[in-house]
Amino acid sequence: MAQNITTNPQSSNNNALANVSNNALERLIVLTQTDMEKVNSLIISRAHSHVDMVPELANYLIGSGGKRLRPMLTIACAKMFANPNENESNKSQYFAAAVEFMHNATLLHDDVVDESNMRRNKPAARIIWGNQASVLVGDFLLGQAFLMMVETKDIDALGILSKAATIIAEGEVFQLSKIKDLNTSAQEYDMVIRSKTGALFEAATKVGAMAGGADAASYEALGIYGLELGRAFQLSDDALDYGGAKGVFGKNTGDDLREGKMSLPIILLLENANDKEKALIVSALGNQDCDDLIVEKIIGLMKEKKILEQVMQQASNSVANAKKALEILPSGEIVDALFDIADFCLVREY
Amino acid sequence: MAQNITTNPQSSNNNALANVSNNALERLIVLTQTDMEKVNSLIISRAHSHVDMVPELANYLIGSGGKRLRPMLTIACAKMFANPNENESNKSQYFAAAVEFMHNATLLHDDVVDESNMRRNKPAARIIWGNQASVLVGDFLLGQAFLMMVETKDIDALGILSKAATIIAEGEVFQLSKIKDLNTSAQEYDMVIRSKTGALFEAATKVGAMAGGADAASYEALGIYGLELGRAFQLSDDALDYGGAKGVFGKNTGDDLREGKMSLPIILLLENANDKEKALIVSALGNQDCDDLIVEKIIGLMKEKKILEQVMQQASNSVANAKKALEILPSGEIVDALFDIADFCLVREY
Repeated sequence: MAQNITTNPQSSNNNALANVSNNALERLIVLTQTDMEKVNSLIISRAHSHVDMVPELANYLIGSGGKRLRPMLTIACAKMFANPNENESNKSQYFAAAVEFMHNATLLHDDVVDESNMRRNKPAARIIWGNQASVLVGDFLLGQAFLMMVETKDIDALGILSKAATIIAEGEVFQLSKIKDLNTSAQEYDMVIRSKTGALFEAATKVGAMAGGADAASYEALGIYGLELGRAFQLSDDALDYGGAKGVFGKNTGDDLREGKMSLPIILLLENANDKEKALIVSALGNQDCDDLIVEKIIGLMKEKKILEQVMQQASNSVANAKKALEILPSGEIVDALFDIADFCLVREY
Repeated sequence: MAQNITTNPQSSNNNALANVSNNALERLIVLTQTDMEKVNSLIISRAHSHVDMVPELANYLIGSGGKRLRPMLTIACAKMFANPNENESNKSQYFAAAVEFMHNATLLHDDVVDESNMRRNKPAARIIWGNQASVLVGDFLLGQAFLMMVETKDIDALGILSKAATIIAEGEVFQLSKIKDLNTSAQEYDMVIRSKTGALFEAATKVGAMAGGADAASYEALGIYGLELGRAFQLSDDALDYGGAKGVFGKNTGDDLREGKMSLPIILLLENANDKEKALIVSALGNQDCDDLIVEKIIGLMKEKKILEQVMQQASNSVANAKKALEILPSGEIVDALFDIADFCLVREY
């Protein structure tokens, strides 16, 4: 079991932490490499279709440099238990590819819903092929994900992924229904992110544990690890949307604000704002034409009130929960990598 | 086995045919009533969510007066074989509800893709709740469909429905990629409609046959019946979009033309048009602002060249194929109703 590192995103140890967690990502890549090569082949072959536009669009997104963290988690969780039957069925590879397809399907639909122009530093697929094709290719990928699961004949794992699909959609609708709703609570936000992001990370680790033949306690522990990791990722993403704790102002900074998305930074800021500040926030919220100067002013208020530090503290709490869940698992380099990778979501700056 | 009625949509027997097939629909409703009550309860309970917008939107669409033909087909195909185990598991009811959810999910996504304003004589859900919610609630319904299938633990039926989900999406993307493509062939159109409409009818009858414990030959026959029925439905729909063989001009007449959709009527008209007529068609194709007068002119050309009669002849051929497929099935009132209901798609005027 890895030692219990205390994580504090505001500390001057941030650079050291970044090194540890980048290193953890590399270790996870090496540990899952052989399986991930097969997963990647599966991904390429299952994105194929006799309708040219399907693989064109799908490969543009899938090949656009995502870290494939979710399928790596599936593989890692399966390998942890070294089930001797695993080699024959290669179930975990099918599960991992299905998880990645589900992830990409939700990205395609999210970009349509959010009217996003960029994804992974490239124009979003919907900008090139249109919203219509993005919706439909998302549906195709979801169908293919379920087909791969069907091929494994594992009905329990299918249950996990179908349940995740509905929870993700519910979370997204909940978020949508709260757009520009000034009364959105931190608790409601938490329900949104546990659903829209946590659920797929949780499903990724759970189906991995299933494929590896984990006992019930380990299976539950890895589920908690996945959910808390996903929550930390989303909190960190939502802080980054306002420049992050370091205050780096990038080209997507303020997107959530302009979309009227009630993420934790804006909820906490509203709770701590006077009437004049509230009026400023309300003028920007959901206003696509909102000037960069206003966004910078609002980020200034967040800095003044240490809002993003509070958001990152919550992310830190989830990272600690994720690490704690790993304590009962069989020690080894996989668990060590999972332990260290939890810090990864606290130090991303992109 | 029902007697072999010759169907000819152009004949003066059209009214008599309409009576037979409306009557067939009523007979099918009566024959499946007990099961359909349970299917409807399942549909209502599974559209529920703690996120209010989900059931609001889903129930608006699901309760908007669709005929529920697809789930009725599933129930009918299952009942045909009177599997003594069926009562215990009620599999066919879960399958039927899942089929209806898949259908409604595709309707929600289609209306976004086609930018439709109306659905079943009411404003489309996207007009009331927006495109974003329609995409996401569609995803929710698809997830719930798979969850219901998982509950039956029938991996083969799950395979049928996941395969159908990918084929439907492929068909829709193919159709999209052919928008305004004057070189679209009748064969390509046929691939589109077999995928986007035939595949779900085929899946509906196949999973019903599975639940009923059909032998391999009956299962295949019911699959052909479903596919051909779906093809006939879509051909008939596509003719109706140009006023149908009777030339009734309604408020949605010409929608496909204005969307640039390459359906069979326009493909056949282009094949039979001189340069001046082609120029007229090209000016209207994909032109959302196209004047009703132009649409009427194009429909006039279709009348002159008997285009819609040719389209309905193809629908008629599919109806004949559907009926032929039923010949090997156990005779009884269910097969009789399925036989007569095939005519239903030839005489719809809405």
